[in-house]
Amino acid sequence: MPKHSEDAEKFLLAAKRSEIRALERLAESCELVTTVSDLVHQLQRERGISNIYLVSAGFRFSSLRAEQMQFSGKSADTFRQLLHDHYLQEGRCSNPRDMRLLNSIAYSLHGLDELEELRRHVDAFEVSALESTDAFCRLIAGLLSVVFEAADVADDPEVTRLLVALFNFMQAKEFSGQERAWGAIGFAGSQFDERLHQRLEQLQDCQRRSLEVFLEFAGDTEQARWQAIEDSDETRDLNRLRRVIAGLSNGEPIAAEVSEVWYQLATARIDSMHRLEDAMAARLLRVSRKRVADAQSELGHHYAQLQKMKSTDWSRLPALAVLFDPEVPGLYGRASTAGVPPLHGQSLAHSLYDLIRSQVAHIHRVSEELDETRRALTERKLIERAKGVLMRNLRLNEDDAYRTMQQRAMEMNLKLADVAAKIIEIGNRRGALDSDGGKSRPADAARGGSPA
Amino acid sequence: MPKHSEDAEKFLLAAKRSEIRALERLAESCELVTTVSDLVHQLQRERGISNIYLVSAGFRFSSLRAEQMQFSGKSADTFRQLLHDHYLQEGRCSNPRDMRLLNSIAYSLHGLDELEELRRHVDAFEVSALESTDAFCRLIAGLLSVVFEAADVADDPEVTRLLVALFNFMQAKEFSGQERAWGAIGFAGSQFDERLHQRLEQLQDCQRRSLEVFLEFAGDTEQARWQAIEDSDETRDLNRLRRVIAGLSNGEPIAAEVSEVWYQLATARIDSMHRLEDAMAARLLRVSRKRVADAQSELGHHYAQLQKMKSTDWSRLPALAVLFDPEVPGLYGRASTAGVPPLHGQSLAHSLYDLIRSQVAHIHRVSEELDETRRALTERKLIERAKGVLMRNLRLNEDDAYRTMQQRAMEMNLKLADVAAKIIEIGNRRGALDSDGGKSRPADAARGGSPA
Repeated sequence: MPKHSEDAEKFLLAAKRSEIRALERLAESCELVTTVSDLVHQLQRERGISNIYLVSAGFRFSSLRAEQMQFSGKSADTFRQLLHDHYLQEGRCSNPRDMRLLNSIAYSLHGLDELEELRRHVDAFEVSALESTDAFCRLIAGLLSVVFEAADVADDPEVTRLLVALFNFMQAKEFSGQERAWGAIGFAGSQFDERLHQRLEQLQDCQRRSLEVFLEFAGDTEQARWQAIEDSDETRDLNRLRRVIAGLSNGEPIAAEVSEVWYQLATARIDSMHRLEDAMAARLLRVSRKRVADAQSELGHHYAQLQKMKSTDWSRLPALAVLFDPEVPGLYGRASTAGVPPLHGQSLAHSLYDLIRSQVAHIHRVSEELDETRRALTERKLIERAKGVLMRNLRLNEDDAYRTMQQRAMEMNLKLADVAAKIIEIGNRRGALDSDGGKSRPADAARGGSPA
Repeated sequence: MPKHSEDAEKFLLAAKRSEIRALERLAESCELVTTVSDLVHQLQRERGISNIYLVSAGFRFSSLRAEQMQFSGKSADTFRQLLHDHYLQEGRCSNPRDMRLLNSIAYSLHGLDELEELRRHVDAFEVSALESTDAFCRLIAGLLSVVFEAADVADDPEVTRLLVALFNFMQAKEFSGQERAWGAIGFAGSQFDERLHQRLEQLQDCQRRSLEVFLEFAGDTEQARWQAIEDSDETRDLNRLRRVIAGLSNGEPIAAEVSEVWYQLATARIDSMHRLEDAMAARLLRVSRKRVADAQSELGHHYAQLQKMKSTDWSRLPALAVLFDPEVPGLYGRASTAGVPPLHGQSLAHSLYDLIRSQVAHIHRVSEELDETRRALTERKLIERAKGVLMRNLRLNEDDAYRTMQQRAMEMNLKLADVAAKIIEIGNRRGALDSDGGKSRPADAARGGSPA
């Protein structure tokens, strides 16, 4: 065997090590996502509690708020600590596509820094409940974008699917939280006007759409658990109350107890969602860590095989395994491999070439799976972007933009993603004429191209 | 400004550094591709020369072959040296998606190791011209897959387009070389039978398809240069000769001079292609290096801005820039930002938030462009994979598989890629029933999912 083969061997191992490093980084991102999921949940609670504190001029929830701020603070500390441990190490080999993840972290950290200031404003009643809610929503949107970016740059098919499912589920939960907040505002003002009805309806639409994507990417277990939540008594009761609210006309008086029931039912649903979210995060951690362990044991197998090869008689190994492999196409249209001497027998199973081949097969399998996941993801992103184009150019709201696309797709017998691609193409041409095509608002990125 | 902001600042800079690292790795891949392009060209020459050497039983091209082996060897050494310098450094931070690139390098290196052995077989006339050609084709296919992998994992939109264009152009050139070889075989045997005619036609089809993709991704300059080659006298003469050959019936005698003319015309075309290939490779290097330089100067700008901020009066900076930014959507459906105090004035333009925002915009722009490029690329890959499914399941040859798909797309008024996705879906379901769906042959990966 020629001396140079050492290089081929080195690259075989370098490829595997590169996969391990990628999977380790991915496992880190998953850990980060788990932490973010908890932090978002704590902030959602603080948002709700701060609201009631503000609305009651500090008479209600004062100590509960103090307690919740402790929880939020602890969760934020865990988040910051993890960031330090994983991402700010000297000489760290970051995933180059980390740029987007790292920038969304910078954004979120900046928002978290301001949380202190926001709390002081709440303490001093210098902001309204609506303003405070609004600010919390921005902070949460920033944190959700961290999850979105982690999902968007993941390179493992199963982990990507789980991350996309989790991100969309977190979105749905956030929309549920916003629906609860608007409902509470309606009850506090003792009336539901037309605009409030519309908002509630739209937020329910947003939840449905996020949940659709969640279901598209989630595994069987998560789908079943979600179905159980949907089939629960709580959801049935919540839906009934939603219909009652939708039926309230402008100015109609509402019993005070209904407000309490609304808050309880909405909260019960959000808490159920949080438990499913936790289970998904736990599975994500398990799966991503198992990937690393699997890849490490494959590397160990490679070493063992190479060691074994070195102790065997080289002369018995095939001399032209690669270049005369009849299974690999060579000259196009070459009739048969009949003229080629049978260069490889049993010994091939333990050759370097065999290891390279099996690794090619492994990469091929993973890449194909990943391509399929990414395709679904890219289509989702296209639809979101096209919606944005329609909203800007036709001055439509989000739901109308979405429905317009759906209708075009039906009329033209095209996939929604293909209609979206056409809309973006036309939008780009228009954008090239304007000085600024309305692109690249920080909002879009902070929201990760998500609805609302 | 709260103390923690240092973290947000660190992540802003980490994000930019991560982009720089990614672009540096990409520039390295581009350098590698340039080297591979030269090595492939040398091996294509050696393949042709070795052929004539073998056919003439060593009477012709003996010294030319010795000379060409020197050139090939030099080019291979450059390739190996570059690999050592860039990819086998201790503690190197590789791009995690490098796995595929590194494995295709391992495959190519193994093939290059065997080249020595192949040459000894040629020296001793132990292989036929056809077998030697076949072996060279496999080696070249392995090297082309290095280019394919580099294109497939690139993260910059313009560089990706250039790499995809270059890869497909190299493919087309390789098919031209194989067409030349089959033509020469026909002339050597003094007859063109039906199968040979078919092969030539199919190789011309393969060239056309690769060139279509090249034109889809290439820039204006490359497109114009290719048009000039297509419009040249040489191409006109070659096309005329192609028609003459296609008109030859089985066993018809051919004047010896025609063989020489065929070789000259085909070679002239390949040489023109090589010059365009060189120009593309040079542009690729320029563009990828400029990307690194640009990102580095942006990092410098960030540092300067942060420095300037530190020397200004902090109290004049906005206190709640992120959480009260009216441009970022917060609570869904929140009516207006009228109630929010005007927190930011001119000073915002020099805040940390402003830097984060501008980086978000930058990332957003690059990602959208990359998504578009990747979508086109994914569609191409889907079409290739679907072709493979049809070839296996319906026992079709490549061209018939392609035409079947085209016809279905027309009939169903669908995009070719959507038909391909359906075929793969059905194929996967079938594959799940079989124990092995015929997936993951090393050949597919070595060829980078390319035609032939």
